[in-house]
Amino acid sequence: MSRSPGRKQENHKISRELFVLTYGALVAQLCKDYEKDEDVNTCLDRMGYSIGIRLIDDFLARSAVKKCRSYSETADMIAQVAFKMYLGVTPSVSCSSAMGNEFSLILDKNPLVDFVEELPAERASLCYCNLLCGVIRGALEMVQLAAEVTFLQDRLKGDAVTEIGITFLRKPEDRRHKRN
Amino acid sequence: MSRSPGRKQENHKISRELFVLTYGALVAQLCKDYEKDEDVNTCLDRMGYSIGIRLIDDFLARSAVKKCRSYSETADMIAQVAFKMYLGVTPSVSCSSAMGNEFSLILDKNPLVDFVEELPAERASLCYCNLLCGVIRGALEMVQLAAEVTFLQDRLKGDAVTEIGITFLRKPEDRRHKRN
Repeated sequence: MSRSPGRKQENHKISRELFVLTYGALVAQLCKDYEKDEDVNTCLDRMGYSIGIRLIDDFLARSAVKKCRSYSETADMIAQVAFKMYLGVTPSVSCSSAMGNEFSLILDKNPLVDFVEELPAERASLCYCNLLCGVIRGALEMVQLAAEVTFLQDRLKGDAVTEIGITFLRKPEDRRHKRN
Repeated sequence: MSRSPGRKQENHKISRELFVLTYGALVAQLCKDYEKDEDVNTCLDRMGYSIGIRLIDDFLARSAVKKCRSYSETADMIAQVAFKMYLGVTPSVSCSSAMGNEFSLILDKNPLVDFVEELPAERASLCYCNLLCGVIRGALEMVQLAAEVTFLQDRLKGDAVTEIGITFLRKPEDRRHKRN
């Protein structure tokens, strides 16, 4: 009475809704575990970091991208390849410093909050999607790029868009190289 | 300096690796929170149930499937449409009772454990993927089907395959209907 679908090619593409709801369960659990929003945010960032340092291998293998030659190329890669691949959306990118090391990823729509209506009043400081910051930070670190990654705006908090800020931390030897 | 990708059609398809790693973070957090494996299993099942009762609307809308007319059709639908949609794999289905209400979904490969090498010795009773049982149970309940859903075999525990058992709980009025 067994009905086998046969040996189909394995498919890595999935609909994201189960992921989005599972992420919600994770955040809800952390909100049970920690009273302070800051502790939840820190925990999400730390979890994301652990994920990012493992996800980078998958990303490099699956995307087959070449080495980025500038912070700008790297920011574009994160937005146009990585976000597309893992969240199904493509943020727009803007460079927000004359130094060329600060970028914003701007999401008109953030799929991770698809099932979230609003943050409870007592959780006003929660960075619901903070895992993403950790993921980006961890993945960048594995390609020798130190960065600070934080939410600058969040539609869940009433902002017009959701904006993730990435500041690449220049290493001392960077100063020796001039910009092309 | 803004580079926008334009207004592309939103894409619900994503690569599953970020999901799989995020699920791992959830299980790890619950293992921190609860000493007993049974409590982690119960919590995962309960979380899954909450997810299932919300996910069913997305599933029905996205799959545009017709109403199933038998338990057998329902089991096939879960394996061939729902698993494919949300996990990118298609388990084989077998009916394991003469009564026609017990089915097994058999996974040669379980993507949710892609990044898990083995369970720690002190977590031998953990049903790592128990969230899935809850999701199936919750989703079925929303289409008026009561069911028990449990892991019968698990490759993480050394079994040859991963097997999820679904037992549809017959309602009294079912007895009035004869099998076609």
